[in-house]
Amino acid sequence: MCGPALVDDDFRSRIAALKAVKGEVSESPFGPDDEIGMLNLLSPSIAREQLARADGGKVFDLSVDLFMGMPTWTVGGEPPFSIWMVHTPRGTLADDPVGVGPEQNDLVAWSADAISMFTHCGTHVDTLNHFGYHGRIWNGFSADEKLGSLHWQVAGPDRYPPTIARGVLIDVPPALGLDVLPDSFAIGPDELEEALGRQQSELRPGDVVMVRTGRMRAWPDPAAYLPREPGLNRAGAVYLAETGAAVIGGDNIALEQLPAADPDNWMSVHTYLLAEAGIPIIEVLNLEELAAERCYEFVFIGACLKLRGATAGPIRPLALPLRQ
Amino acid sequence: MCGPALVDDDFRSRIAALKAVKGEVSESPFGPDDEIGMLNLLSPSIAREQLARADGGKVFDLSVDLFMGMPTWTVGGEPPFSIWMVHTPRGTLADDPVGVGPEQNDLVAWSADAISMFTHCGTHVDTLNHFGYHGRIWNGFSADEKLGSLHWQVAGPDRYPPTIARGVLIDVPPALGLDVLPDSFAIGPDELEEALGRQQSELRPGDVVMVRTGRMRAWPDPAAYLPREPGLNRAGAVYLAETGAAVIGGDNIALEQLPAADPDNWMSVHTYLLAEAGIPIIEVLNLEELAAERCYEFVFIGACLKLRGATAGPIRPLALPLRQ
Amino acid sequence: MCGPALVDDDFRSRIAALKAVKGEVSESPFGPDDEIGMLNLLSPSIAREQLARADGGKVFDLSVDLFMGMPTWTVGGEPPFSIWMVHTPRGTLADDPVGVGPEQNDLVAWSADAISMFTHCGTHVDTLNHFGYHGRIWNGFSADEKLGSLHWQVAGPDRYPPTIARGVLIDVPPALGLDVLPDSFAIGPDELEEALGRQQSELRPGDVVMVRTGRMRAWPDPAAYLPREPGLNRAGAVYLAETGAAVIGGDNIALEQLPAADPDNWMSVHTYLLAEAGIPIIEVLNLEELAAERCYEFVFIGACLKLRGATAGPIRPLALPLRQ
Amino acid sequence: MCGPALVDDDFRSRIAALKAVKGEVSESPFGPDDEIGMLNLLSPSIAREQLARADGGKVFDLSVDLFMGMPTWTVGGEPPFSIWMVHTPRGTLADDPVGVGPEQNDLVAWSADAISMFTHCGTHVDTLNHFGYHGRIWNGFSADEKLGSLHWQVAGPDRYPPTIARGVLIDVPPALGLDVLPDSFAIGPDELEEALGRQQSELRPGDVVMVRTGRMRAWPDPAAYLPREPGLNRAGAVYLAETGAAVIGGDNIALEQLPAADPDNWMSVHTYLLAEAGIPIIEVLNLEELAAERCYEFVFIGACLKLRGATAGPIRPLALPLRQ
Repeated sequence: MCGPALVDDDFRSRIAALKAVKGEVSESPFGPDDEIGMLNLLSPSIAREQLARADGGKVFDLSVDLFMGMPTWTVGGEPPFSIWMVHTPRGTLADDPVGVGPEQNDLVAWSADAISMFTHCGTHVDTLNHFGYHGRIWNGFSADEKLGSLHWQVAGPDRYPPTIARGVLIDVPPALGLDVLPDSFAIGPDELEEALGRQQSELRPGDVVMVRTGRMRAWPDPAAYLPREPGLNRAGAVYLAETGAAVIGGDNIALEQLPAADPDNWMSVHTYLLAEAGIPIIEVLNLEELAAERCYEFVFIGACLKLRGATAGPIRPLALPLRQ
Repeated sequence: MCGPALVDDDFRSRIAALKAVKGEVSESPFGPDDEIGMLNLLSPSIAREQLARADGGKVFDLSVDLFMGMPTWTVGGEPPFSIWMVHTPRGTLADDPVGVGPEQNDLVAWSADAISMFTHCGTHVDTLNHFGYHGRIWNGFSADEKLGSLHWQVAGPDRYPPTIARGVLIDVPPALGLDVLPDSFAIGPDELEEALGRQQSELRPGDVVMVRTGRMRAWPDPAAYLPREPGLNRAGAVYLAETGAAVIGGDNIALEQLPAADPDNWMSVHTYLLAEAGIPIIEVLNLEELAAERCYEFVFIGACLKLRGATAGPIRPLALPLRQ
Repeated sequence: MCGPALVDDDFRSRIAALKAVKGEVSESPFGPDDEIGMLNLLSPSIAREQLARADGGKVFDLSVDLFMGMPTWTVGGEPPFSIWMVHTPRGTLADDPVGVGPEQNDLVAWSADAISMFTHCGTHVDTLNHFGYHGRIWNGFSADEKLGSLHWQVAGPDRYPPTIARGVLIDVPPALGLDVLPDSFAIGPDELEEALGRQQSELRPGDVVMVRTGRMRAWPDPAAYLPREPGLNRAGAVYLAETGAAVIGGDNIALEQLPAADPDNWMSVHTYLLAEAGIPIIEVLNLEELAAERCYEFVFIGACLKLRGATAGPIRPLALPLRQ
Repeated sequence: MCGPALVDDDFRSRIAALKAVKGEVSESPFGPDDEIGMLNLLSPSIAREQLARADGGKVFDLSVDLFMGMPTWTVGGEPPFSIWMVHTPRGTLADDPVGVGPEQNDLVAWSADAISMFTHCGTHVDTLNHFGYHGRIWNGFSADEKLGSLHWQVAGPDRYPPTIARGVLIDVPPALGLDVLPDSFAIGPDELEEALGRQQSELRPGDVVMVRTGRMRAWPDPAAYLPREPGLNRAGAVYLAETGAAVIGGDNIALEQLPAADPDNWMSVHTYLLAEAGIPIIEVLNLEELAAERCYEFVFIGACLKLRGATAGPIRPLALPLRQ
């Protein structure tokens, strides 16, 4: 048996109600204080059950490196990934920051650095405060009340427990006879069903579902990776949400078809998943190796950095194949 | 059987030679290209064996939140942890960064943020380029040749594979009848043996070893957490290295007794472990829950952010207890 | 004759109406598009007249250095002044950023750096968007309409013309028989008149008025310079505003007595001067040399960095004594 | 009479010796501690004399705005100009950073921001530590000895006194019958003489000399402003240095013809002017208005931000026309 005990019929009907696209934020079925949405579908029993299926002898690393010049958002004001030195062996000799003198500074070669980055740079979880409707996010939290000058006070990645869950890769391109989906291609329910059928995969409540577009093959060329990405359309997102997905991820920068097909909502999948369905998103996943090895079902282990109040948490998620 | 096949007698003697404190960098026994040192002791077979022992139903999260005002290094020039908004729902209404107009900006409530931080802030892995001797690091890589203007070209966390290993907590204070070690207390071989004996724990090659000082109880008060920390002295570090530890971690900011007892080396444990013994360090671990539950042996799962060429990688390591 | 032609009786009465403390933002007498307030009192004819009085052979530099560890605001989230290297001679040899090869990298020793700072760090002009009332600033501009996610769209230092004006130093401590005013000392109309009388100085419309507290003698010790500063109280600020001051400056971090005497407004002088009186403020001025040389009247030349939409502009203002 | 007393024949011959291109750093004729080079040619008597010639009724502002997306260096690792909010009126209501409660946070509308930038972004002075030869800069200061981990300890803009000097614009394009010089056009002695002759301008020791290429007309389009800029070649730079220029400026990003004609030195004008001739450079000057008004001789007033130890200082220089 798979799936949490709380996913009974009553819960299912509440979730179903939740999944209807309505263009406004949802109240959480997990109570007025809930900040993590469908991550609540996960549980110790799921984690125990899933981990017991995993083969620890092979680990797929689903994250990308963080480096200067890497593809990242450039709508306006997002800082690029930067790294710089704070202490270097030769600099220490010249400035003696600890006051230990030249002999010791020559002996002890110290290097240390700092970074700055947009939180949605590299492989990361989008938290539920990232997109909402009319100034509110999932569960009705209001930006006017809960967004300070520097960060949200709720719904950040600091609230996200480590996740051990069933993972499923939906490899869309081969189901359509392609290596990589074309620019701005929309992945809807038909494409998802086609791919799931080809793989003979089924989705279950509490799954971490990953949708492969093949866009990662353009990595790390920003001009090729970023614009006009293929991805989920809203119907596709609803389809996955209705299966009870706990998390939905993609190998592209924004998970969804861009530009959006909806002329009235430029981020229609984000707003739906985060604000209506309560489903966190993972972006910039490297799914190439999983796909190459046709590893469609696996055990997902992930724990994002707990940036207090942020709208995203950098993460290095792991996929472990099932034991033979 | 536990431990990698490569830990035969010949390897042991080479490692033993390596562990002798000599004040100069070591050549790696894993070859001239090695950048990760004793992480090479880990292997798929260890990971498979260890994961099979884990109970996924309980996960200890060993990391701290990242937030403004948190304790971090302040020797000079290290930036504090900072977070700021790049897009806000109300700001988007005023500046329309995507050019979609007021109606859609009102509908789509967008929040996004950026961070900057010293890489040694929060729970993190110190990589082998962090400290060396005379301008060189582990395996002889030279800062003059391999340290660019902005970052090292070798030995960064981008080289570190995800780690599944046997983990051992050495809880020092209770072995000495204390809750928390006093300021600048030195943990040497005697204290380690005392604690291991009390716990009836043994150390094995390839272990991720964590030394608890109790300093985390002062978290997050910088004035109480940072100065004059208790920690390993060099003899204690050598003791652990000689057991074949793959990684050594602590609950304090710098793992080691500070100020250092060695008048000639203000970071004598860091230089020894990183440059001589090739053992990465994890700092700012929250070991309180593990200690409270007397979970001295566990399965360690960790994967640091792959900051290319950095001297540290933020990490959110997990400890899973053994199956009953 | 001194002062702009536009300062006729009608203007004076409008300004007088403006100066009444009312706890709400003022409409500008200079029209609905005005973003710079009393800087409009300045004019080419004033500048010409003033410059003709100046002795260029002596220049007082009224600004402080910008350096790591310097005193700056620490209420929460303000980044410290930071500088770091982006290119170094040895780093360039290792990373060859331009692709010119080792010989040329050895020949051409390249150094370049970057900074980050709170805009109110060091000597700076506070612009009229820095403080307002009830979400609005000077001339009624609304944060909801004009504050984007990253910066204001109006009233930033990019709007500020270079300023050549009559400058007056009001040296308060010696008028009270002191070297330095005590902590939290309030400078009101009596103290200002006392000091002006001692100096035999008079204030005129369009002046750049600088109030010395002596706090700069504690520079650069943050613990001594920042807390509980002596400064203007609201009555003192009104007194100066009523003289027609174009700009008011101080040698402390916030110009005003802190903590504020007004229990209902923790920045009562800032809100009054910026939002009601339309008078930009200069802070962290080094007035020590002017005071030592008893140079109470001088020609002010200043031009802040044009940070588009910022709430402050770093400035290095100059004071030139009058020709003999 | 114009020019400092110290420019006697002996000095002229020493300067002449200095100006010979030799591919190594020069010792300063101003002594072993000198960090500012030819700025030493300026003096109170020059400043007095020049200021007395100025008409304060018209001020040319020679600087550009600093804003996100502005043209700036992108060789690698240079951060773009960024600005972000640290305090906003609505954010303050949500996070109450001062602890004054909702009523006062509603009353007092607080906005404050921070910036980060490459120091060579916008109008700025290149200091003499910016380029050198073989690890040394002007006057022999060695990077190994004087470049700390974060900044130089010598020759930064904090050493630069406020400058009042004779300014000369050399408007090259009209002398060649052009509006704007073509890509990578080299300005050598012939072009300079042609332009000076057309203007009937002469150069004198201690001048601030500004060379207009017309590139500023492409501002602020990075793709048009930055690449393949027309500018001084080394012979042109030597020509100006030999006149005794105190500072040389340009309206482009790098003053010099790029790519450099010299196959062995990709920054041959920078290295010559800074390391051999001791002449600071000003870049990204807006000379359009000066040119339009044919104001070829003027009084220069400038004072860069005193960023301690930096390789550049942001500046907002002013040009005042001569009195009629």
